Amino acid sequence: MAYELYYWDGLQGRGEFVRLALEDAGADYIDVARGAKKDGQGTGAMMKIIESESEPHIPFAPPFLRDGELIVPQVANILFYLGPKLGLSPKDEKLRYVANGLQLTIADMVAEVHDTHHPLASDLYYEDQKDAAKTRAKDFIDNRIPKFIGYFERVLKQNPHGSRHMVGDQITYVDLSIFQLVEGLHYAFPRATRTFAKQYPHVQALHDAVLDRPNIAAYVDSERRIPFNESGIFRHYPELDQDA
Amino acid sequence: MAYELYYWDGLQGRGEFVRLALEDAGADYIDVARGAKKDGQGTGAMMKIIESESEPHIPFAPPFLRDGELIVPQVANILFYLGPKLGLSPKDEKLRYVANGLQLTIADMVAEVHDTHHPLASDLYYEDQKDAAKTRAKDFIDNRIPKFIGYFERVLKQNPHGSRHMVGDQITYVDLSIFQLVEGLHYAFPRATRTFAKQYPHVQALHDAVLDRPNIAAYVDSERRIPFNESGIFRHYPELDQDA
Repeated sequence: MAYELYYWDGLQGRGEFVRLALEDAGADYIDVARGAKKDGQGTGAMMKIIESESEPHIPFAPPFLRDGELIVPQVANILFYLGPKLGLSPKDEKLRYVANGLQLTIADMVAEVHDTHHPLASDLYYEDQKDAAKTRAKDFIDNRIPKFIGYFERVLKQNPHGSRHMVGDQITYVDLSIFQLVEGLHYAFPRATRTFAKQYPHVQALHDAVLDRPNIAAYVDSERRIPFNESGIFRHYPELDQDA
Repeated sequence: MAYELYYWDGLQGRGEFVRLALEDAGADYIDVARGAKKDGQGTGAMMKIIESESEPHIPFAPPFLRDGELIVPQVANILFYLGPKLGLSPKDEKLRYVANGLQLTIADMVAEVHDTHHPLASDLYYEDQKDAAKTRAKDFIDNRIPKFIGYFERVLKQNPHGSRHMVGDQITYVDLSIFQLVEGLHYAFPRATRTFAKQYPHVQALHDAVLDRPNIAAYVDSERRIPFNESGIFRHYPELDQDA
């Protein structure tokens, strides 16, 4: 049976980290909120689960995955669950906790990216918090990108199995998520990331290697890949960008 | 061998969610950063791991757990790892993903609590972002507490095994974390939480039931429990609090 992915239609957002794993593995999945109402899909089908008063395990927010009766919410949790089924987790069980720790650190950075354009309230318009956003984005560029990406660079360098992968000696969903993170940072902050490849050569090389994977290359060129836009997590607001 | 917990000395912070699980289970553990330098402990011992250039799996930040050679970072990951060993995870493996999803939603709320007093930058003093903090805290009280805690209330009400636990029919680490979340919200926002028990009766009842557990009651009364203070996640700044 196909996996059912539930995420907001029209943006990559957090759902994209799950899509990349499903696409790389060539898994059979339905992107439910992007489907047609006449097929029982669409945003309404997603909201029905979130607002259900009888569902035993309701999710707080998209993305969530439905696999038969089980609903698995939260990106890192979905990937922890799917990874072994898709061949995208380390085989060594202990390394799965290393992978999960890295994925949660990626999630922390993604939350901070969101807050560069919404530092005061998710429900307020960007235009109504632009000054605060400028302060937060400057701190993100000056301090947080170096801290997070510098850390991921060290993780690659210190990986005892070689610096081609974030954990272990083969591809995992963590590598795919690093690709997406780097893509997004380049999109949102082209000035701040101008010297990225020089500063973080292992991270950039991992990004490039993921993009060379046939299923990822095909996906990125397909209509299934929604372009980055200003509804997502990674938004390009030139006034928030600056040289690093 | 004793578990080694690494977290900043002098505050509850994110480490407290792990401490509560270890304490409830009566596990043998060392709170390393709070130990003495002469015993190879203290903050220096923690920083040595974080800054190591040879450690195969470095953590991004505290808290992290060391179990033999394995280093497990990130609260939800630590609890996912420890839960089965401490008897604080659901026995049904599928429910473990439900528990992890809930724990990650608690982690998201904890990050938002932090940002009520540090909306612009973690590295800036609170005093230098107080106006932004007031805006963010108001949104947190008006919108985010109802959204998150209202969700947890629904989770309890809709649990097919009964509303005494967040998942399944017995105590898990998620219940312990809900206790800590409620404690923290009451500490930080006494005005905003004045009618909490009435609005969220199941969540409040779960908090009270956890506090009745002998090991938790003994821990909370012990010197091992650091009092809430303004270095932690939950800070009581009266100017950020208001009636809900």
